[in-house]
Amino acid sequence: MRNDTILLEHGSGGRASRRLVEELLVPYLTNQVLERLDDHAEIELEGTRLAFTTDSFVVDPIFFPGGDIGKLAVNGTVNDLAMGGAKPLFLSAGLILEEGLPIADLERIMNSMAEATKKAQVHIVTGDTKVVAHGAADKIFINTSGVGLIPKGVALSGHHGEVGDRVLISGPIGEHGIAVMAQRSDLDFVASCKSDTAPLADLVAQMLYAYQGIHSLRDPTRGGLAATLNELAVQSGVRIEVEESAIPITESVESACELLGLDPLHLANEGVLVALVPAEGASLVLDAMRNHPLGHKAQIIGEVCSKKLPAVILRTPIGGKRVLAVPTGVQLPRIC
Amino acid sequence: MRNDTILLEHGSGGRASRRLVEELLVPYLTNQVLERLDDHAEIELEGTRLAFTTDSFVVDPIFFPGGDIGKLAVNGTVNDLAMGGAKPLFLSAGLILEEGLPIADLERIMNSMAEATKKAQVHIVTGDTKVVAHGAADKIFINTSGVGLIPKGVALSGHHGEVGDRVLISGPIGEHGIAVMAQRSDLDFVASCKSDTAPLADLVAQMLYAYQGIHSLRDPTRGGLAATLNELAVQSGVRIEVEESAIPITESVESACELLGLDPLHLANEGVLVALVPAEGASLVLDAMRNHPLGHKAQIIGEVCSKKLPAVILRTPIGGKRVLAVPTGVQLPRIC
Repeated sequence: MRNDTILLEHGSGGRASRRLVEELLVPYLTNQVLERLDDHAEIELEGTRLAFTTDSFVVDPIFFPGGDIGKLAVNGTVNDLAMGGAKPLFLSAGLILEEGLPIADLERIMNSMAEATKKAQVHIVTGDTKVVAHGAADKIFINTSGVGLIPKGVALSGHHGEVGDRVLISGPIGEHGIAVMAQRSDLDFVASCKSDTAPLADLVAQMLYAYQGIHSLRDPTRGGLAATLNELAVQSGVRIEVEESAIPITESVESACELLGLDPLHLANEGVLVALVPAEGASLVLDAMRNHPLGHKAQIIGEVCSKKLPAVILRTPIGGKRVLAVPTGVQLPRIC
Repeated sequence: MRNDTILLEHGSGGRASRRLVEELLVPYLTNQVLERLDDHAEIELEGTRLAFTTDSFVVDPIFFPGGDIGKLAVNGTVNDLAMGGAKPLFLSAGLILEEGLPIADLERIMNSMAEATKKAQVHIVTGDTKVVAHGAADKIFINTSGVGLIPKGVALSGHHGEVGDRVLISGPIGEHGIAVMAQRSDLDFVASCKSDTAPLADLVAQMLYAYQGIHSLRDPTRGGLAATLNELAVQSGVRIEVEESAIPITESVESACELLGLDPLHLANEGVLVALVPAEGASLVLDAMRNHPLGHKAQIIGEVCSKKLPAVILRTPIGGKRVLAVPTGVQLPRIC
């Protein structure tokens, strides 16, 4: 850690984030559960397997097309539990409010959290509220932590990818990133882009019901699909090859990215998941995804090719291959 | 809610905080567990009784005599679990970092969190880190959530107070509040005051081992002993009478309060607990407390007197009685 202060890129979800976590934070708190660096921790209590996870939300702006910080905070933690194969059950909500926040904004956010919990069938059972002086925070930050139940027989982890696994994605990428970006910049031409924020637990349940042997699930949020595929490659110690043309993307996100010079593979998603599935189960899982409203545009986009040096290789439409690197720097700070 | 924006006093732990939570936040998220407004939520999973709790820490300054924001964040959540009679087991840590925070400060805080988890025998098993631009937060905010196991036969809640219960306190009040205040103002004359931040779970275990029938436990943090006693009175629907002269307080806190015009009953504590105990168990519990390093100055300070209008009555040294009101306004913002 040569830089002597925290930089924005430490929050990017890319290389600097990972270094901060792996080299500075985790070593202090060393334990086997934390060191797995999955989206969830698996803990066992009197024979019951629980998933436990936490996420703080600092998205700017707090309201954006398709959602707001409240909806995002519920869905984000629901999804981290779901990526562990857990049934999300109970959430906590920790609010940090800036003095001067309009009460009407807070009410709108609470209403949105309430709706999101109903939709995801979870309950916020404990909470905390702090207030800091004007200028000591930016409007509202929300932490949600979550507890879920991992069904017997389910064992999902980013470490479980194996050669031959197919890489599946549940839907088109980049919509959350572009929606927040559009709102931030008042860009009219991307007005049709809405955040994809959605609870993925029911989709995951359908996928596991179709084929329980799924190896890994992860939702490509901060750092986008590029960061997520690289995390899976590193954790499982495998080389992942992906067909660029197979990655679903909407026309509006694609043209927004072209105009703004953004890479859709680095954009955050809040209602999309990536799965590593043994070849024998891939079409079962794909069918289950396509039969679900949140997965009807699902695609098989690649496969796990070898145990060589962990990396993600993108096969381009013209037949070339390039390494898909972990994002460096900050494309869009405070995206979630 | 007549004010149309969030005010600092909404974070005070007193009357405005309670109104914000009860009138605005809880109604949106209505469920029986949250509505109890205990420090912890009790949830049952496959017959296992868990305590689940969350707290965000925004203390200013982040380093103070006796501790720092990291130690406070671990102990605070450990204590909320302990107040439910639970054995604290697993914690999450959600960091919000301000761009420009010196890495050395972050390392010092992580080191402190690590030491605190060892001392409290808990593990941080899941985490999250966000970074916001300089000026969008103040150095560092930490959320910790916690999961603990509630032993069979233990049923603690702020709602369980009954007429005849004795009110016990584990140690002298106001030390955390004065320590933070002193650090904030560079006041030399209170240099001997240190925060009392400490994990109370072991003390609670000893108390429950001595007498399992304890009705209520609560740690008087924000809003101090005054807010906590009033919460217990309202939740249990009882009148609590307290002998002012029996409340333990150190000379240094007392003289600091006199000089600064602060009421020690409103000052935050981070290593003190209040217990409502049936008369038959009071001396057993008191002995257990006094045999523990964190309770050797424990006192019986009052009792639950009637089911009349919920209130806290302070019997003064000269034989008078006055209502101990919930703190209004903000004595010390960002105390935890």
